[in-house]
Amino acid sequence: MKTVNVAIMGIGTVGGGAYDILTANRDLIRRTRGLDICVTAVLDRSPEYVAKRTGGAARAATLDEIIADKSISIVVETMGGVEPAKTFIIKALLSGKSVVTANKELISKHWSELETAAKKGGAGLYFEASCVGGVPVIRALTMSMQGDNITELTGIINGTTNYILTKMDEDGKSFDAALKEAQAAGFAEANPAADVEGYDAMYKLSILSSLAFHTSVPYGCVYREGITAVTQSDVENGRALGYTLKLLAIGRKRGDKIEVRVHPTFLPHNHPLAAVRNEFNAVFLKGDGVDDIMLYGRGAGARPTGSAIVSDIVTCAKAAEPTYSTFNNNGQLNPPTEIEQDFTSKYYLSLTLPDNAGTLSKITEILGNFGISIGAVIQKEASDGFARVLFLTHDTRENAVRGAIEKFKKSPRVKSVDSLIRVI
Amino acid sequence: MKTVNVAIMGIGTVGGGAYDILTANRDLIRRTRGLDICVTAVLDRSPEYVAKRTGGAARAATLDEIIADKSISIVVETMGGVEPAKTFIIKALLSGKSVVTANKELISKHWSELETAAKKGGAGLYFEASCVGGVPVIRALTMSMQGDNITELTGIINGTTNYILTKMDEDGKSFDAALKEAQAAGFAEANPAADVEGYDAMYKLSILSSLAFHTSVPYGCVYREGITAVTQSDVENGRALGYTLKLLAIGRKRGDKIEVRVHPTFLPHNHPLAAVRNEFNAVFLKGDGVDDIMLYGRGAGARPTGSAIVSDIVTCAKAAEPTYSTFNNNGQLNPPTEIEQDFTSKYYLSLTLPDNAGTLSKITEILGNFGISIGAVIQKEASDGFARVLFLTHDTRENAVRGAIEKFKKSPRVKSVDSLIRVI
Repeated sequence: MKTVNVAIMGIGTVGGGAYDILTANRDLIRRTRGLDICVTAVLDRSPEYVAKRTGGAARAATLDEIIADKSISIVVETMGGVEPAKTFIIKALLSGKSVVTANKELISKHWSELETAAKKGGAGLYFEASCVGGVPVIRALTMSMQGDNITELTGIINGTTNYILTKMDEDGKSFDAALKEAQAAGFAEANPAADVEGYDAMYKLSILSSLAFHTSVPYGCVYREGITAVTQSDVENGRALGYTLKLLAIGRKRGDKIEVRVHPTFLPHNHPLAAVRNEFNAVFLKGDGVDDIMLYGRGAGARPTGSAIVSDIVTCAKAAEPTYSTFNNNGQLNPPTEIEQDFTSKYYLSLTLPDNAGTLSKITEILGNFGISIGAVIQKEASDGFARVLFLTHDTRENAVRGAIEKFKKSPRVKSVDSLIRVI
Repeated sequence: MKTVNVAIMGIGTVGGGAYDILTANRDLIRRTRGLDICVTAVLDRSPEYVAKRTGGAARAATLDEIIADKSISIVVETMGGVEPAKTFIIKALLSGKSVVTANKELISKHWSELETAAKKGGAGLYFEASCVGGVPVIRALTMSMQGDNITELTGIINGTTNYILTKMDEDGKSFDAALKEAQAAGFAEANPAADVEGYDAMYKLSILSSLAFHTSVPYGCVYREGITAVTQSDVENGRALGYTLKLLAIGRKRGDKIEVRVHPTFLPHNHPLAAVRNEFNAVFLKGDGVDDIMLYGRGAGARPTGSAIVSDIVTCAKAAEPTYSTFNNNGQLNPPTEIEQDFTSKYYLSLTLPDNAGTLSKITEILGNFGISIGAVIQKEASDGFARVLFLTHDTRENAVRGAIEKFKKSPRVKSVDSLIRVI
């Protein structure tokens, strides 16, 4: 039986989850995969904690000790953040040790440098755990669907925002109250910005769309809008119109044009993603062979993310040789690929208007001038001389809608532009 | 670039779908996988059809010609049925050519013999396309979740029956009318027995549960019940109680006990599998690391199944060496594994009873004597002196329910036992 000695850098939630699975299922993995995976060293801020957490089974080690230990072939990075994780990973890769990481921010920001180091060291770089926890979406993109031209990727890939939006929808909570509940339940950080502002989903989308479309999609190309501006009244209005509000990550390829965006989105109630509740995640992929497939599961958490790390360790140990990106992974958009900024969508638009004769007609005229065709208009009861008016547009261009919004903001006929939410 | 010459045996629907993807996306696969996959030979009943179907790009060949051609490394089998597919595959494997097949019946019935031939020939045997079409469920079991102890597998893995049940539920059709519609839409065969009697799902469940539980699960161990006895009134009664009727394949492992069963099942409306409509398939997997994941997509069809075949070809061409079963694949149940026949479930039971005082009390007494606890009773309007009574039980043992049913069939107090449907 092949022995695989592993070092874990950072034995917090996710690293601890991986450690627990490796320990509990060591015999299963021996018996079914012919690998004896042994965590021999752990790097952690607190060496005492290593002894306590592993019951002395693994020794506390520094980076240099791990690098110097020729018996260690795989290093797991579960520290999070860019530094020192980046420096540590690059050193491990250059020394010829393969790296398994759950670090989406690092992969998204420095994939090119990490892969360069991996190639130099002849090592592998694995990161299934960086996107959508235990859901094998990276494996689906790299080890299934290899003959498919993938043209669409649509997902709920952040559990925190999905939990918050579910509570706003089902329990009528405000954003603030739902966020507090998410924090209490352990589904949101004390500083929730990375999740609720859409950064986490942006990093993941840049990784997943690079893999899906075989071209480097830097995270800076992703249009990003979080959920902090979403109100209970948006959620209610959408529900009445037959829609559920989700923070979607959307990637689409049309020839050499790619659109990549993260924003709150209304989905029809019967859309399979509308049924993805609480902290769960799901990703839809569309290929020209397989058509639509969806992968669903827990996008975060110690054991689900740990399960993806263990899967990467086994995959790495079984691989004949490391495989690298299927595209020019230089951190830049690869020509002739271009980002489509002026994408097409349906829109939900909420305006507060003076309750005067002729106002609605003027507003619809402006929309018409921008080529925006209206699917539905709902005027809600007026109060204080103002009416709340909701518009649902047919498919239209982003730039047209932005143009109309600018016009509305300057118009004396519009008191306020309250919401603009894309609809699929 | 590595050239991979492939032969296809049987260029019908599925073989043709694989051929079309390989042809249309040949450049994509060259560019992204570094493989030039070329279909050089096709075996088909009609050699003239080969020339027509491939525009002369592939030559018509006999099995002996394919075996003799040293340039061919992978043989795709898409003929279906047991013979001559089995003989052809074994010859190809013994000659050292790897085989990619979509043939669930053959894998389920003769996996052990095929794998023995593969090992002798040093060849690989790939069959992602045999289960759930383009949905990468076999890849999820073999190349993801490798560190998970998988304890449950629950799926809608037959598109024909799901299409029929959807039409019965949503359009109020009878079984016969829904079957005719499925046949007209191309989702059911002229002879639908393999699908509607549950054989197709049984073969797939035996393959998937062997992979999930790492033990040989012969198809003869699968409890099988089709959907031909399902009535419109069952579907309606279930819907009124909050349930959707699906043909489920269920595999569970508890220690050394395994239960494997295919039968019509009531699911709560909010269960994710209840939303899987028409010809779509989905599989839930539960592991001790990843918890629940679900994979959803098209379980059949030329291109979805063809996509899985192409994925297997790429996987095979990239593999350092063939991998074989993670268990003793001898076609027998491997001790100490046992099949749990007396499984636990909730039940929906529909009886026709004489509308007499005391009857219901006698019936519930019999259920009680068998240790069956009742969750709900609904007595429907009597006609002709008979009442239709529906029972929903709490969790109970299969054998207890069967005992009660035997008793009811002999009892003068029961006119007829109309339905017995398991509930999850």
